[in-house]
Amino acid sequence: MDKLLLIDMKKGETIFSEMPARYSGLGGRGMTSTVVAGEVHPLCHPLAEENKLVMAPGLLTGTTASCSGRLSIGAKSPLTGGIKESSTGGLAAQKLARLDIGAIIIEGLPATRDLYIVHIDANGARVIIANELRGLNNNETVERLTGKYGNKVGYICIGRAGEMRLAASSIATTDMDNIPCRHAGRGGLGAVMGSKGIKAIVVDDRGAASVAVGDAKEFSEFNKLWAKSLLDDPNTGVGMPAQGSAAGTVIMNREGAFPTRNFRFGQFEGVSEISGKAMRKIIKERGGRQALPCSPGCVIRCHRVYNDKDGKYIGKGPEYETIWAFGANLEIDNLDIIAEMGAICDDCGVDTLDVGVAVGMAMEAGIIDFGDGPGALKLVREIEKASYLGRILASGAATTARVLGVSRVPVVKGQAMVAYEPRVIKGMGVSLATSPMGADHTSGYATAVNLGWAKNWRYVPKLQVWGQMEMSREIQVRQAAMDSLGLCMFGNTPLLNDRNALPGVLGMINTKYGWHWQEEDFVALGKEVMKKEHEFNVRAGFSPAMDRLPLFFYKEPVPPLNTVFDIPDSELDRFYDF
Amino acid sequence: MDKLLLIDMKKGETIFSEMPARYSGLGGRGMTSTVVAGEVHPLCHPLAEENKLVMAPGLLTGTTASCSGRLSIGAKSPLTGGIKESSTGGLAAQKLARLDIGAIIIEGLPATRDLYIVHIDANGARVIIANELRGLNNNETVERLTGKYGNKVGYICIGRAGEMRLAASSIATTDMDNIPCRHAGRGGLGAVMGSKGIKAIVVDDRGAASVAVGDAKEFSEFNKLWAKSLLDDPNTGVGMPAQGSAAGTVIMNREGAFPTRNFRFGQFEGVSEISGKAMRKIIKERGGRQALPCSPGCVIRCHRVYNDKDGKYIGKGPEYETIWAFGANLEIDNLDIIAEMGAICDDCGVDTLDVGVAVGMAMEAGIIDFGDGPGALKLVREIEKASYLGRILASGAATTARVLGVSRVPVVKGQAMVAYEPRVIKGMGVSLATSPMGADHTSGYATAVNLGWAKNWRYVPKLQVWGQMEMSREIQVRQAAMDSLGLCMFGNTPLLNDRNALPGVLGMINTKYGWHWQEEDFVALGKEVMKKEHEFNVRAGFSPAMDRLPLFFYKEPVPPLNTVFDIPDSELDRFYDF
Repeated sequence: MDKLLLIDMKKGETIFSEMPARYSGLGGRGMTSTVVAGEVHPLCHPLAEENKLVMAPGLLTGTTASCSGRLSIGAKSPLTGGIKESSTGGLAAQKLARLDIGAIIIEGLPATRDLYIVHIDANGARVIIANELRGLNNNETVERLTGKYGNKVGYICIGRAGEMRLAASSIATTDMDNIPCRHAGRGGLGAVMGSKGIKAIVVDDRGAASVAVGDAKEFSEFNKLWAKSLLDDPNTGVGMPAQGSAAGTVIMNREGAFPTRNFRFGQFEGVSEISGKAMRKIIKERGGRQALPCSPGCVIRCHRVYNDKDGKYIGKGPEYETIWAFGANLEIDNLDIIAEMGAICDDCGVDTLDVGVAVGMAMEAGIIDFGDGPGALKLVREIEKASYLGRILASGAATTARVLGVSRVPVVKGQAMVAYEPRVIKGMGVSLATSPMGADHTSGYATAVNLGWAKNWRYVPKLQVWGQMEMSREIQVRQAAMDSLGLCMFGNTPLLNDRNALPGVLGMINTKYGWHWQEEDFVALGKEVMKKEHEFNVRAGFSPAMDRLPLFFYKEPVPPLNTVFDIPDSELDRFYDF
Repeated sequence: MDKLLLIDMKKGETIFSEMPARYSGLGGRGMTSTVVAGEVHPLCHPLAEENKLVMAPGLLTGTTASCSGRLSIGAKSPLTGGIKESSTGGLAAQKLARLDIGAIIIEGLPATRDLYIVHIDANGARVIIANELRGLNNNETVERLTGKYGNKVGYICIGRAGEMRLAASSIATTDMDNIPCRHAGRGGLGAVMGSKGIKAIVVDDRGAASVAVGDAKEFSEFNKLWAKSLLDDPNTGVGMPAQGSAAGTVIMNREGAFPTRNFRFGQFEGVSEISGKAMRKIIKERGGRQALPCSPGCVIRCHRVYNDKDGKYIGKGPEYETIWAFGANLEIDNLDIIAEMGAICDDCGVDTLDVGVAVGMAMEAGIIDFGDGPGALKLVREIEKASYLGRILASGAATTARVLGVSRVPVVKGQAMVAYEPRVIKGMGVSLATSPMGADHTSGYATAVNLGWAKNWRYVPKLQVWGQMEMSREIQVRQAAMDSLGLCMFGNTPLLNDRNALPGVLGMINTKYGWHWQEEDFVALGKEVMKKEHEFNVRAGFSPAMDRLPLFFYKEPVPPLNTVFDIPDSELDRFYDF
């Protein structure tokens, strides 16, 4: 991955260059965050010409390394005002890696309001005017482009929400069925892509060579080690293939940590209706598909296809976080409605988490009642209509709360909170409070440690106060390193569980790059990435008092455990002292 | 003013107590900011129960001191997330002072969604259920209440925007004609009042004694000194009685400092159509009224009554900032439309500045064109209708920009910028960047110094870089002291112009309170107030990087002078080192 592709949208030009020394050896989140921190004015408006949208495959992406197909996307976030990295699966990252492209930097704004696509193949890259795609959502965009470019390419695209530059809009990538259902969901990166006037990027790797890995046999041995740890893990080897990420629903509910009715309760009565087991049964009955990889080489296979009662395709089987945001969070116990809301969000190109929590804000405001599934579906359809109410919702939970005058607003740094009750899974609470990304389910899976699943890590019980900060920090640091390698975050539990997992990963890195990394180098990479991100945020105006959860988490005990979030501010304030 | 009135909305109770020692000797902004900084959790949600709404007459309010009738209102701001103080004229403050009430602290949230009024008179205070007022705007609210409580009382009320808890909503007070057209406009304080469930406060001072001033003759002599400086000043003695605050339009335009088309130009072609002179002529021709005080004892008399072509009452003659926000800012050169938009805002209870800039955001988004007066009027009417678009606009410019995907957003700390081009009047630029209130036209009138009007102050030319920070700081500090005394901010120019002005003011303070204040005590008061405000903001998460103007002011020269804002960050970072 020796090439840097610069796309200058002011001029409509694309420029390939050798990877500059300052970015050499970086990948994924390490690449995107380094470029954003180094090149973007921290006080620019996220939709203005000074912002840059950066895409990068991970250091292992494009190889046969299991679950290494993530595309990292970064920019200054329209949602949080800070740095943002969000990753997505699908095909595009591996194809970019095969084209030897280590990073795409999209800068400037087009002089006119025209809409463009960018076409990348082995011969180069071109910016092509594409006004005929205006106003289309993701599915139709890909359908149209497929008519022209076929289904052997990878598509990276935005729906109407991104075109409207709304702060909860996502960037979609196509999966192995050529469906744009994998998303860099969080932080409004779709709005940045929309501001650049880019509707889609077509990545065609036909004719490209395969990615060099050094000694292929050695690489393969290390990959087997890594794959084995993924397959042996109860989470990635058993739970996820069987039920997808939705496997978490019943577990978190049992722990009293499944936030219900906008974080009023830790358990949801209707959980069995929206569980991974329930989804598995529904998909099976209706001829859907299960245990699919979202990108080639994934052994976890958490992806699934969800059909309606008549066997007609609705969308992807909703993820754990989506089931939560549209389910327990809203007291909706109907998987069909949840899947449909998720599919609408995927099509329009918005984050299901921020939109789900935004619908919760509409319920708080009394626009519809908690538990009203058809009402919630109707609200989400407003995004499809691009009505003012739809635009409000697609601007995320914080903005929706503001416009509707709501005061119970579960956001950190402007980004909606997630499916782990921070008063119960306190390590995850620390992650949500301190992550440079705002409240983010991908910031680091402290939950695994808090629930005692991490056999290769010292146990920090979920309700304990002391030690959560350090544990969350270490987990976040390692997550940042994984994100830089292009590994799926679900690899987290095997890494925490199996002492052979990291050696497998490091072995692949060392074989491919001729490096001599040990665990401390992996950790050092994660630290460096997080430091750069934090420093950007400080220059963007963030301060320690923003590394907090909303006040009600500190004051209001959550049933059934009736605990509050009680990690002292002094602990949170030390988070970035490393 | 020895009494503190605590209104506990959770219990629906009112409690009078002697003023606690920690608040004794404070008034106006000094009182409200001290209470907010001391009693409100800086990380609470502004609409949640932890916020408090504080109202206080100034130290001289209720006496015969000229222009001392301001009511200071404070809370944690729903708009900026920081501390907010906004003041308003009218009758209420003087009546509170005569009732010996030094501060009202409204805390908690009502248990039900009922709506209330608070009735205060010489016999005490009561919280009264008043659901019949729900959904009414300010004019009808006061009409209904007048039917019951008469027109000899002072009303403090909110319109529908405040009831909906929208972030740009204001708190209105009735003027000498019993019209609720004077507003604590900025920072969304109306939303805090709405969150407390209070539609109106009725202040009936009948039967109350007059305010003691010590030696009445001595007090009167000092007041004459102060009044003379107000009457001798070209601004407050000539310009304002003749043309109201609108006198500034032509002057700022001539200086190249009248922001036009969302801060693209410093001069507006249509300025003569919306000038103070034009308004004076229109009001005269149509049988309106001019040169009126907004509260008893004001010698400036900037208030006026604006009628339509048929001589029918529209609303108050729009202020300079309103004329700018709905005029040059939108390239609308029609005073009738501007006055009507202002009147709608006054009735609904929203800040004309943040709403005017929000309409500019709608123009940036292409919803209507710049210059489209009827289109702008139609948008403002959406607030009246409480449609989703109306709610967006009434949430202020920053939120409107977000929901409409606009990147040219003239706000500081979330609050809309004002009618002074900061690339030209650079001292005012410093004030807008550094004020703890966000971009605020009332933060301190550095303009007077920058334009050479301040004969009693060393001249800092408008385009100069050095010295602006210190000058702005000194002016802001003095403004904070004036706000604590209850003096109208228009007294600023006489204080900067006439060396006898401050001795007059200090003489009144010393006579009334038996103090021995000199100029340094006045300055020390202002410093103390600003420090408390700043410290609150730091605890609320504000950081030095937020003391900046939006990036485009640094990069884009503004015609005709083609200057940028070039006060170094290092200067702005030193602002609070005092």
